[in-house]
Amino acid sequence: MTISAQFAKRISGMKASEIRELLKLLDQPGMLSFAGGIPDPALFPAEAFADACQAALTPERQAQSLQYSVSEGYLPLREWIATHMARLGVTCTPDNVLITSGSQQALDYLGKLFLNPGDTALVGWPTYLGALAAFNAYEPRYDRLRIGENQPPESYAAAAEAAGGRVKFAYLSPDFANPTGVTLTRAERMQVLEMAEALDIAVLEDAAYQPLRYEGEDIPPMLALEQAQKGGDLDACRTLYCGTFSKSLSPGLRVGWVVAAKPVIQQLVLMKQASDLHSATLNQIATHQVAAQMFDAHIANLRAVYGRRRDAMLAALEAHMPDGVSWTRPEGGMFVWLTLPEGMNGAALLQQALEQEKLAFVPGQAFFADGSGANSLRLSFSTSGEAVIAEGMARLARVIKSAC
Amino acid sequence: MTISAQFAKRISGMKASEIRELLKLLDQPGMLSFAGGIPDPALFPAEAFADACQAALTPERQAQSLQYSVSEGYLPLREWIATHMARLGVTCTPDNVLITSGSQQALDYLGKLFLNPGDTALVGWPTYLGALAAFNAYEPRYDRLRIGENQPPESYAAAAEAAGGRVKFAYLSPDFANPTGVTLTRAERMQVLEMAEALDIAVLEDAAYQPLRYEGEDIPPMLALEQAQKGGDLDACRTLYCGTFSKSLSPGLRVGWVVAAKPVIQQLVLMKQASDLHSATLNQIATHQVAAQMFDAHIANLRAVYGRRRDAMLAALEAHMPDGVSWTRPEGGMFVWLTLPEGMNGAALLQQALEQEKLAFVPGQAFFADGSGANSLRLSFSTSGEAVIAEGMARLARVIKSAC
Repeated sequence: MTISAQFAKRISGMKASEIRELLKLLDQPGMLSFAGGIPDPALFPAEAFADACQAALTPERQAQSLQYSVSEGYLPLREWIATHMARLGVTCTPDNVLITSGSQQALDYLGKLFLNPGDTALVGWPTYLGALAAFNAYEPRYDRLRIGENQPPESYAAAAEAAGGRVKFAYLSPDFANPTGVTLTRAERMQVLEMAEALDIAVLEDAAYQPLRYEGEDIPPMLALEQAQKGGDLDACRTLYCGTFSKSLSPGLRVGWVVAAKPVIQQLVLMKQASDLHSATLNQIATHQVAAQMFDAHIANLRAVYGRRRDAMLAALEAHMPDGVSWTRPEGGMFVWLTLPEGMNGAALLQQALEQEKLAFVPGQAFFADGSGANSLRLSFSTSGEAVIAEGMARLARVIKSAC
Repeated sequence: MTISAQFAKRISGMKASEIRELLKLLDQPGMLSFAGGIPDPALFPAEAFADACQAALTPERQAQSLQYSVSEGYLPLREWIATHMARLGVTCTPDNVLITSGSQQALDYLGKLFLNPGDTALVGWPTYLGALAAFNAYEPRYDRLRIGENQPPESYAAAAEAAGGRVKFAYLSPDFANPTGVTLTRAERMQVLEMAEALDIAVLEDAAYQPLRYEGEDIPPMLALEQAQKGGDLDACRTLYCGTFSKSLSPGLRVGWVVAAKPVIQQLVLMKQASDLHSATLNQIATHQVAAQMFDAHIANLRAVYGRRRDAMLAALEAHMPDGVSWTRPEGGMFVWLTLPEGMNGAALLQQALEQEKLAFVPGQAFFADGSGANSLRLSFSTSGEAVIAEGMARLARVIKSAC
């Protein structure tokens, strides 16, 4: 099954047979897809990875790189991550770091660690689909995480208790979130921390897109803000930071990390050991070498390329979209979130777009834990050049106008 | 933490402080370790993996090898596995195959798929420690899988029901099991299948060591025997086969697989997608190339080298061990299981062995779900040359004699 097929499977409200019909259309030449939330493979640092694999697979190093290794992860990589986190404002040691197989695995482990059936997870409406998929295995109830709405914390707790469980964590992606592209201000981050403190719950900070900022100033991670609040004591922090190399270096190598208080990391290490022993050794060694060698320069290049694509998408939306359509203006990441006029349906629009305009995107409803959001859709600008983006947005405007 | 430290952590009945003391001893020069159940890193096909990584990381292929891929796994690798399974007597298609991050991940997924808290898992006394670790997360009860004892199946069911759950599966490793080295006969395999049929439970066949046979004829996998019984219909089979490249090509790349009925595989694919999206793409591509190129020749070499080491260990045990000590005669794999005179304690013996003889092994008690087996220990012959094995067994005999 192709990646497009996997995305299509997630399109809520469609039957498998309908999806198969859609996929036939996706195979046509000339199809423009803004569906996949994936990096542009032309930008992968493949040569650097090839060199790193060569260096790791010499007779001198094969005994390490192809052998079992420790569950917490390759120490030089954890050291690199500790240094990286320090630059973001988080002071930590390698003992605060667990290497995971992508940040998806971190979300799975954190769901397993915190959730009992019927417990409540606070998530955005919409939120990252993969987080819902990971948490769903532990049968939680979801409640809408409301930011900037002065929701009293007790109301979350009361609703969770009425449903037979407790609020266990708030999950959010403060920088250029998937799917909305929205970034939380410093004040909003502080509000969430305050709410978490009042409820005595964990905060799961998904920082998947954090390095990919195209304008504005970096805002400190929630973990950095909490650590500062708590006099630098990371072990007193309730925020768990999930990072990944998937959007910066390569998703196919499956290397991500969690930074958290030591007692939490120790529990996660045991979970990792029981679930898959450790993330692939060679991948950690190669990722360390490539990161140490070129992380900043590579990120600078990604920012330049993706930034131009974001600009192209925003300009084309401005130029073509009819009244009644609105969209986010992401400062980074890969996504623009588009809201259609009330009453329009993103899934129906996708079908029309595929048929009439050879155009693909992800309908927004799948990103809502309660199945709302039918009049929204997600557009990714990461894999298409500026001219394709301009043409794609013109097509999208046409199909929206024809559906109005 | 080193691998030795991880093994030491698992030594049941020891406190962390005691283990730390032991580890200091392990760092001494001249220490002989038969503890780790790991392949000899000198035998890794590192050059072939280096070539495969180079080939996968060209500009033409980087878009595949470093990108996200499908949760079920890289199709050419699943095709290779289907062909490999056919040679073992199992007829299947790539749709019957899920690629996992080592067979440890398969055990975790199967625990998650089958076990609710209080359900019963039938396991050997002793059994693979990592299987217990994986299953423990799902809070099962364990019952002793008795083979060749004419245990009536209803007695398992009645005991499970009395404990508030149901028997969900039997877990076993029919070829050269970790930790005992014991292989089940064809008749014993058929008995387990019959029992599983009577109880209507799954059979988890852990084939980690299957390729490593040093004498005797291959016995068909339980899945092959069941498929033959069921007229070739794999989808009617209750056996789930867990394979891995960890003992044949490399454990550090974390590539394993499950072969099972399609409906089971479809459920496991969804589980994989939610838990870590997919196993690392580059690793699957490289493993496929190396397997396609040299699996048989490489296995032939491993068999020759490990076979000589097994012979050396059995000869040295024969030469040195006092009366009252018995051990298994494995036809393959990596382990000899040694039973001490009743009343002796493997963990206490390890402490003495480390101190007096600079010798390490794994006390057997940790492999028993009920904490029995104190008078046993596991010896691995995979990582030491014949002379070291001879010297090590002489030391072991001395320490046993001194403890008698």
